[in-house]
Amino acid sequence: MAKTALPVTRADNFANWYQEVIRAADMAEHSGVRGCMVIKPWGYKIWERIQQLLDRRIQETGHDNCYFPLFIPLSLIQKEASHVEGFAKEMAVVTHHRLVMEDGQLKPAAPLEEPLVVRPTSETMIGEAFARWIESYRDLPLKLNQWANVVRWEMRPRLFLRTSEFLWQEGHTAHATAEDALDETRTMLEVYREVAEDMMRIPLIPGQKSAGERFPGAVETHTIEAMMQDGRALQAGTSHYLGQNFAKAANIAFQDENGRQQLVHTTSWGVSTRLVGGLIMTHADDDGLRLPPVIAPYQVVVLPIIRDESARGPVMAACEQLVARLNDQSFAGAPVRAYLDTRDDHAATKRWNWIKKGVPLICEIGPRDIEKGSLALYKRTLAPSEKSFPDQGEFVAAVADHLSEIDAALFEQAKAYRAQKMRDDLTTFEELKAHFDGENKTGFVRAKWSGAAGTEDKLGDFGVTIRCIPYDQSGTAGKCIVTGEDATTDVILAKAY
Amino acid sequence: MAKTALPVTRADNFANWYQEVIRAADMAEHSGVRGCMVIKPWGYKIWERIQQLLDRRIQETGHDNCYFPLFIPLSLIQKEASHVEGFAKEMAVVTHHRLVMEDGQLKPAAPLEEPLVVRPTSETMIGEAFARWIESYRDLPLKLNQWANVVRWEMRPRLFLRTSEFLWQEGHTAHATAEDALDETRTMLEVYREVAEDMMRIPLIPGQKSAGERFPGAVETHTIEAMMQDGRALQAGTSHYLGQNFAKAANIAFQDENGRQQLVHTTSWGVSTRLVGGLIMTHADDDGLRLPPVIAPYQVVVLPIIRDESARGPVMAACEQLVARLNDQSFAGAPVRAYLDTRDDHAATKRWNWIKKGVPLICEIGPRDIEKGSLALYKRTLAPSEKSFPDQGEFVAAVADHLSEIDAALFEQAKAYRAQKMRDDLTTFEELKAHFDGENKTGFVRAKWSGAAGTEDKLGDFGVTIRCIPYDQSGTAGKCIVTGEDATTDVILAKAY
Repeated sequence: MAKTALPVTRADNFANWYQEVIRAADMAEHSGVRGCMVIKPWGYKIWERIQQLLDRRIQETGHDNCYFPLFIPLSLIQKEASHVEGFAKEMAVVTHHRLVMEDGQLKPAAPLEEPLVVRPTSETMIGEAFARWIESYRDLPLKLNQWANVVRWEMRPRLFLRTSEFLWQEGHTAHATAEDALDETRTMLEVYREVAEDMMRIPLIPGQKSAGERFPGAVETHTIEAMMQDGRALQAGTSHYLGQNFAKAANIAFQDENGRQQLVHTTSWGVSTRLVGGLIMTHADDDGLRLPPVIAPYQVVVLPIIRDESARGPVMAACEQLVARLNDQSFAGAPVRAYLDTRDDHAATKRWNWIKKGVPLICEIGPRDIEKGSLALYKRTLAPSEKSFPDQGEFVAAVADHLSEIDAALFEQAKAYRAQKMRDDLTTFEELKAHFDGENKTGFVRAKWSGAAGTEDKLGDFGVTIRCIPYDQSGTAGKCIVTGEDATTDVILAKAY
Repeated sequence: MAKTALPVTRADNFANWYQEVIRAADMAEHSGVRGCMVIKPWGYKIWERIQQLLDRRIQETGHDNCYFPLFIPLSLIQKEASHVEGFAKEMAVVTHHRLVMEDGQLKPAAPLEEPLVVRPTSETMIGEAFARWIESYRDLPLKLNQWANVVRWEMRPRLFLRTSEFLWQEGHTAHATAEDALDETRTMLEVYREVAEDMMRIPLIPGQKSAGERFPGAVETHTIEAMMQDGRALQAGTSHYLGQNFAKAANIAFQDENGRQQLVHTTSWGVSTRLVGGLIMTHADDDGLRLPPVIAPYQVVVLPIIRDESARGPVMAACEQLVARLNDQSFAGAPVRAYLDTRDDHAATKRWNWIKKGVPLICEIGPRDIEKGSLALYKRTLAPSEKSFPDQGEFVAAVADHLSEIDAALFEQAKAYRAQKMRDDLTTFEELKAHFDGENKTGFVRAKWSGAAGTEDKLGDFGVTIRCIPYDQSGTAGKCIVTGEDATTDVILAKAY
């Protein structure tokens, strides 16, 4: 058996390791269309778990799901100038609505009167509907969400992280006042934080984006920033306060309680299949994926060990009984998800398959275990060779504790890694530059920033961006890491995905 | 109060009535993009119910969800000749991946090397993946499903029924033998029948399509056909046995148990948001939508009647208690879905709102009801003016019975309508022609058909198609309704959506 399950380790080549984790867990692959991925069943099950957890919270916070068209007319998307500028370079354009066969070759025919953009996001489309639907303050707040695919043409695609098409949810709300809209913006960022940090166990720094990193057309962009195991930052979710920018562009007006016409304040917020990439780069190790129990499609996989056919009956019966008993237990407020893998294959092959897929607990039951009432237990936070032999009944009773332990361990390991790659002792631009100088020089730097014009460009010159102005500010005074001027604002600096 | 809630009745103008039902229930509307609709929260909640019921059955029958790209290269889609011929006239084509601003006008820039089709369906895309994934008989059957949006350019759009973009699920499977693939085809049609007939209460005729009505590229197409309240047929779901056509086109081969290379047999099957249109045209009446309880997002809506503020506290408390008690009951194996509408508005306005949305049961509680322990009950299968005043406790205990009664009544009414518009006594082509001659001459005709070439074209001349060759064959001999030749096959003929 190989020392690790993957042909490449994180230390060898992080980017290749990432690809190998996805391949080994059979989660996704590139399709024949540039930048578009196929999400395979294991990857999709993980996305469905994220969807379920998020969707419940989106509904609990008073949003209704709906569905808006995939296509946006050019005349509509250009109404908000900075928005179209932000997306123009990556928009797929539909120009024809028919094909004809000419000389054995299909060719586009029937040009559209007005070309259509495949939505990169739906602010303009939904703003146009809001303008029709909203008349008075009684119609506010209007709080909608949609689960949809969007397209942003990608020249350097990476599975889950940067794909030309991706799946996401996008929330869009309209409010009577700036205060209400800002509350909404923060509430939804907290929903994202809860799912990504408390459930997916990705340590996060929530905060606001600097001007250079805001969503095109936003007044404020709030973000949750995570550190991947190569020390780079991943923006895991964003929530935007759009002020009255889109309300002006689409004329979304309402009559207030005093009979005056006013413009609404809007928000939008989204997370995408990119979160799956963040999950991998936070928790996977050199044996493959590791899944926090709340997200794991299966929390326990039970493998029957059948070396000769005479044992098949009793072993299968014991395994089925174990799965049934586990499914009667609960963890984190939901029934335990146990799965019986009945495929005929070598025990070690099957075990490695589930190790690479990141299942938290693997149980094996063979003929001798039946006699003893025990099982062989593998935990995904320990080495694949480390096993214990608990009593079956005791294991069932303690399964929630085992899952809690793994849940906590994954979060602690991710926080420990981040702490080790976090610097807050750099004070000059030269130190900062030296710290990040070189392809593999990464990590987070917490430093002071003055907010002066041009400072973000200077950081960009060596591939560093302000990831966020964290909510958690120290309140101390110091010198701007770029200009050396007096500054009190703490920022997080990093190279990012 | 108006005699009916809608400005147009079914008898006045069926097409306009249909639009008005959707508008009055606030389910969907046309967007600014030709043929693309906005599905509003009430319409989307109904679609989500259909999704939940179907998705569970798709998984229980051994299929995994996954996700394939939105875009299909021209070179891929043209591999199966009859398939591309069937869809060429309605495919949206992406030709550019960037926009530039020229003279204040956005223009497509950066042409793609190869244009991409926005998927009208994914057989070709998924076939290409199957060819890569399948190696041996051990990999079979491979059974996948995806929930996705698809685009078929529509020149005469109608909400839910014919839209350029629609939402659906598409299942795609590969099997070692024709028998297995045919089993799968029938199994999934039965899943569709169960959801559409047993849950959505749409009476169906399951059967096979004639050659002229098959899916482009299919060997057999199985269908469920429903009659709408204007006597026209709606194809509510289809399941296709594709034989080896797509396997040949994409070279989906496997090594059988004897080491020989063979082509797989594939199937595909789908239902779409069109089902929502079928639901409306089966059950809605001149007061608006009527929802079968299993599909209804809310099965009971509770309305507090507050005429003066002093009563607000006790009335709200009684309503909240009622909703909590109802939610503890169960119907059709799931908790009852009761909803408290707390908006401040006139009682009658609120009641009409829910009548038009089709909620099965509406309860009102006012101050006098509290004293008596009663409530005012409206059932959507009775006239909106008909109410009863059951005891609250008795109503809670009997809520499942009330829902069952409505469930049965909707199905019986739909079956009675269909029986009345079903003819099986026409024997000649002239009779058939006379029966269907004229815009409003509709209904189903059950007749014999020889299957001779050209017969389908002759029917098409006056807008009639063979809806299906029903599974339920009489086995009698007779004369073909088109040619007068001897024939034993029963077919269902109708004008269709």
